[in-house]
Amino acid sequence: MSREASLNALRDRLRRFAAERDWQQFHTPKNLAMALSVESAELLEHFQWLTAEQSARLDAKTRRAVAEELADVLLYLTRLADVLDIDLLAAARVKLRLTQKSIRSPKPAATRANTASCRRCEL
Amino acid sequence: MSREASLNALRDRLRRFAAERDWQQFHTPKNLAMALSVESAELLEHFQWLTAEQSARLDAKTRRAVAEELADVLLYLTRLADVLDIDLLAAARVKLRLTQKSIRSPKPAATRANTASCRRCEL
Amino acid sequence: MSREASLNALRDRLRRFAAERDWQQFHTPKNLAMALSVESAELLEHFQWLTAEQSARLDAKTRRAVAEELADVLLYLTRLADVLDIDLLAAARVKLRLTQKSIRSPKPAATRANTASCRRCEL
Amino acid sequence: MSREASLNALRDRLRRFAAERDWQQFHTPKNLAMALSVESAELLEHFQWLTAEQSARLDAKTRRAVAEELADVLLYLTRLADVLDIDLLAAARVKLRLTQKSIRSPKPAATRANTASCRRCEL
Repeated sequence: MSREASLNALRDRLRRFAAERDWQQFHTPKNLAMALSVESAELLEHFQWLTAEQSARLDAKTRRAVAEELADVLLYLTRLADVLDIDLLAAARVKLRLTQKSIRSPKPAATRANTASCRRCEL
Repeated sequence: MSREASLNALRDRLRRFAAERDWQQFHTPKNLAMALSVESAELLEHFQWLTAEQSARLDAKTRRAVAEELADVLLYLTRLADVLDIDLLAAARVKLRLTQKSIRSPKPAATRANTASCRRCEL
Repeated sequence: MSREASLNALRDRLRRFAAERDWQQFHTPKNLAMALSVESAELLEHFQWLTAEQSARLDAKTRRAVAEELADVLLYLTRLADVLDIDLLAAARVKLRLTQKSIRSPKPAATRANTASCRRCEL
Repeated sequence: MSREASLNALRDRLRRFAAERDWQQFHTPKNLAMALSVESAELLEHFQWLTAEQSARLDAKTRRAVAEELADVLLYLTRLADVLDIDLLAAARVKLRLTQKSIRSPKPAATRANTASCRRCEL
């Protein structure tokens, strides 16, 4: 992965972008958390009337629109983490470790037996 | 940035995690987009009664909880992009280029003159 | 419908409730819109891993929890409309009239022909 | 309040509206919960860059747009409750009773002393 491709490079670009426009005053954690929620819902909107199957084979136009919404979510997520001085990937690794500890063994028998429902198939 | 720290490594870990538990069947794009929205709202919840100023200086406990929610958003975002076979960082770079084209010049005078409001200070 | 049951009665109760606790200062439209979004997501959470079919036949415990989340959404919606001095039911009637004008004729043939998808089956 | 104005009348209109278009198949609780979340976020979007003060004095154009989003939330909320056969206002009354029991006394001294923050000023 090139430096350009990394999350840190993205974070730095967004930081400059906001600074050049004097937007830091509007980029409060509260406002950025709202923007992140709004973008997540714009993503959700593309899926709201689709069946599970349809959601897995999007037409090219919807797929491009969805990719743009995914990007928007990542931009606000990166910007919010920066403003709060939180390291996103480090936080994700901490969280994954917690998740894996709490569901240590895959318990394949139990989990796989009940393929009809999934109360907690959470990351 | 070590390989371990990268988004690609995170994506691969989540992919294995889901495969080991036979969760692919539940990890449809529709369901993952819902989970992403739910996590964004859990993040939002921490800020809902705070003033802009309070949101910028969280106490240690809230900050840790917020970091965990940011992580959850990143996990579902990464997993959803993977299931859709979309390159998150590439999509973000495409989006940033579009944004910068549409607001090419920072127009500092105009933007800075009106510090009281911000209709479109969007990433 | 008794007076007690009406939306107006609910609005008045919430207004008193907030006044008695000096909460008007926190019940800004911005904060209440956030709370409404958070409650909508808590509702959504109950459905995120269910199939369409499962979502239509909830067990008794989930149904009670869902009813409580529906109530929370209504409470914040009513409170937000009150703070903005907007008549909810009047706004709903205006909106319905617009929707019905834009899709005047049910066009049963066209709509029913394509039962596999629904781009715009919106209220 | 006239019968026409009531929530029950709204529910019945939406039920006919969906039936005439054969939309019941798409109006699963899962899909309607998604639509409700999407509409709540469209409402939220109007407030995301506003200060608390600005959110309390919207210009006429924004106010009309906000009223329309409030209406959309009410439409999906009403439709979702109907599909689940849940009485919205009854659920709201149950919830309010619970809330009032848990914060029985307004505790004016304690609550009012700390006007700078509000951890739980929830309905």
